[in-house]
Amino acid sequence: MIEVLQKVKDASKTVAMLNGKEKRDILNKMADNLEKYSNEIIEANKKDMDYAKENNLNSALLDRLFLDEKRVTSMANALRDIAKLKNPVGRIIDGWRLDNGLEIQKVKIPIGVIGIIYESRPNVTSDAAGLTFMSGNACILKGGKEAFHSNRVIIEILRNTLKENNLPEDIVSLLPDYSRSGVEWLIKQDKYLDLIIPRGGESLIRFVSENSKVPVVKHDKGLCHIYVHKDADIKKALKISINAKVQRPGVCNALETLLVDRDIAAKFLPEIKEEMQKNEVELRGCEITLEYIDINPASEEDWNTEYLDKILSIKIVDNVNEAIEHIEKYGSGHSDSIITENFSVAEEFLNRVDSACVYVNASTRFTDGGEFGFGAEVGISTNKLHARGPMGIDDLTTYKYKILGNGQIRK
Amino acid sequence: MIEVLQKVKDASKTVAMLNGKEKRDILNKMADNLEKYSNEIIEANKKDMDYAKENNLNSALLDRLFLDEKRVTSMANALRDIAKLKNPVGRIIDGWRLDNGLEIQKVKIPIGVIGIIYESRPNVTSDAAGLTFMSGNACILKGGKEAFHSNRVIIEILRNTLKENNLPEDIVSLLPDYSRSGVEWLIKQDKYLDLIIPRGGESLIRFVSENSKVPVVKHDKGLCHIYVHKDADIKKALKISINAKVQRPGVCNALETLLVDRDIAAKFLPEIKEEMQKNEVELRGCEITLEYIDINPASEEDWNTEYLDKILSIKIVDNVNEAIEHIEKYGSGHSDSIITENFSVAEEFLNRVDSACVYVNASTRFTDGGEFGFGAEVGISTNKLHARGPMGIDDLTTYKYKILGNGQIRK
Repeated sequence: MIEVLQKVKDASKTVAMLNGKEKRDILNKMADNLEKYSNEIIEANKKDMDYAKENNLNSALLDRLFLDEKRVTSMANALRDIAKLKNPVGRIIDGWRLDNGLEIQKVKIPIGVIGIIYESRPNVTSDAAGLTFMSGNACILKGGKEAFHSNRVIIEILRNTLKENNLPEDIVSLLPDYSRSGVEWLIKQDKYLDLIIPRGGESLIRFVSENSKVPVVKHDKGLCHIYVHKDADIKKALKISINAKVQRPGVCNALETLLVDRDIAAKFLPEIKEEMQKNEVELRGCEITLEYIDINPASEEDWNTEYLDKILSIKIVDNVNEAIEHIEKYGSGHSDSIITENFSVAEEFLNRVDSACVYVNASTRFTDGGEFGFGAEVGISTNKLHARGPMGIDDLTTYKYKILGNGQIRK
Repeated sequence: MIEVLQKVKDASKTVAMLNGKEKRDILNKMADNLEKYSNEIIEANKKDMDYAKENNLNSALLDRLFLDEKRVTSMANALRDIAKLKNPVGRIIDGWRLDNGLEIQKVKIPIGVIGIIYESRPNVTSDAAGLTFMSGNACILKGGKEAFHSNRVIIEILRNTLKENNLPEDIVSLLPDYSRSGVEWLIKQDKYLDLIIPRGGESLIRFVSENSKVPVVKHDKGLCHIYVHKDADIKKALKISINAKVQRPGVCNALETLLVDRDIAAKFLPEIKEEMQKNEVELRGCEITLEYIDINPASEEDWNTEYLDKILSIKIVDNVNEAIEHIEKYGSGHSDSIITENFSVAEEFLNRVDSACVYVNASTRFTDGGEFGFGAEVGISTNKLHARGPMGIDDLTTYKYKILGNGQIRK
């Protein structure tokens, strides 16, 4: 297995030196080849689907796993979209001249070898390969076991495209040992890997974070809050809360807990109850909430729960300070929003809430690389270091200093 | 011990909200108090010195440990210098408006709680506290055991200054358990700490990197190279090599291995031998080097050794490619320099060598926050992520996104 990593590391040196046009051309050819060999992909996917059905995977998982011609085309188009992004490598992000004449340039460069560990959806395979490639990195991928056959064929097509174009195929590699012990081994290989990105359930992310010797940028849970302040525009508060909860409840930037100012509760709670129930959302409220509306009671556990479902917990707070304290205690530092027309309260919320994305009068659902205008996204980082919030290809680079002299020595 | 960390975490929220003037004032008062209570510091330092002498510490260590009035004043002045730096917190580093009218601001914020683990010099205590404070962070410090009494008094003075000014003293804290097991415990507390910075010997850094659950920015070894290309200006090559090796041999940005182009060897080697020997540097050469000059032979181990001493290994290479391969294999990604007048070769070296700082025609000794113009430095990061190379207070911050809306929901 070490030999595989050595090859990926060697290959990372070649991909790091490619210019933007070379990378764009390859990505477009990869896209063409995915479409050209879509039958092979769909054949392999059938094996995964059969196996999944035999093992009684639920319909949501089966849907995420399934590939047909249309879905292969959309994988190919994602690569074409990545090819349109600006090449981040080589960009000078800062530069200055010292008094002794040395010229310092701070230049963006690829990170090197990136390991990506993810779960069932096979389209993540081509997305991850495309994003790491466009940012000048080599990657080693470990997808879900359920998608093993699909992933193997997709990676083979991408590798063959590299080979046909006289590039080392190991720029895009598959982890040979596809088991949990394969992952356990991979995250210890800090001589070969520069970064590990785990995407998936809480237990995978905890396992990788706690055991990795390689730096980790994790894509952890989102326990997002909306705080309806007493000076909220009620129409905006209703519209935004509904959107954040129901537009796509199963994702990390969806709303989980609604904090409502006591002064606005009598007016707001009956209206939000009606709207949420129209949308088939189960409501669970704190004791004070239950004085205003007749819904299920919330327990301490509710404030800690990322439902990823049509369930919403509601808590009454006395003021912005209490709202911020609740978010500090129970939030996951992902996305939180305040609805208010009060300037100073909005400012206080923006400055004091320590989350990757803090909103005023907008839905938390905008925390997304695509929405932010980054083009394709690697994911949403819940790290505080290196990259925070939506991660674009820029975040798959690091920097070095180039220092140009004409004989300078240190006094 | 958890209670101590909880207090530091609570205190981190207060320091995060201070403005530049408030931080400057406190730093200047801390500096005044260090001078005012210099007798107490020097008394405590005597205990450390006595203990160190009893335990036969060598004279270099004793010198690093020793404090007198003059050294306390220079500690105070370092805090005054930090107070002159620009407040990094709140700076908007990027911002744009989306088509839907959302305004996104990417804003620098403090990291939170930073643990710093370092060795004997007590002045690092006030430097580390000052740097983390100016960047809006709380810190928990663990200095060398030899400096325990000095560090305790210094931290007490800084904490009292905070208290006198109605700020939580826990913004600057000392790790209560000063043993190795205290460190082992600290690096697991990822609920309370946001970053660990280890500074010190290789074994400390390896231990922290391999066992920490908290993200680590490490300050590892520097095995720096200078490559004298065939088109080098020999005078520059001599001057720069001597400077990089002898100006301060015990530091991480000093030269350890000199790579010499075969085409320039006959001319360059006798001259560099003469100059290095004038400066009492022991030379160790590869087999081909020994054909030109009479010095000790180098073994494989030499290419892997950070001497931190007046010893230099010399290797003959055929071309820039061979030089880069040697640096890839043996270098530590810290600082490497090429001496050449050839534009294309310089460009190739700058682009292909994957080190934090890559130089043309200058001494590697410039890799330093002070020299780079960052004011005080936290250290030199050998990480590839978050911060690379000289780290200033800007690197003790992260960012968040503030998103300002007027009712936007996701379609």
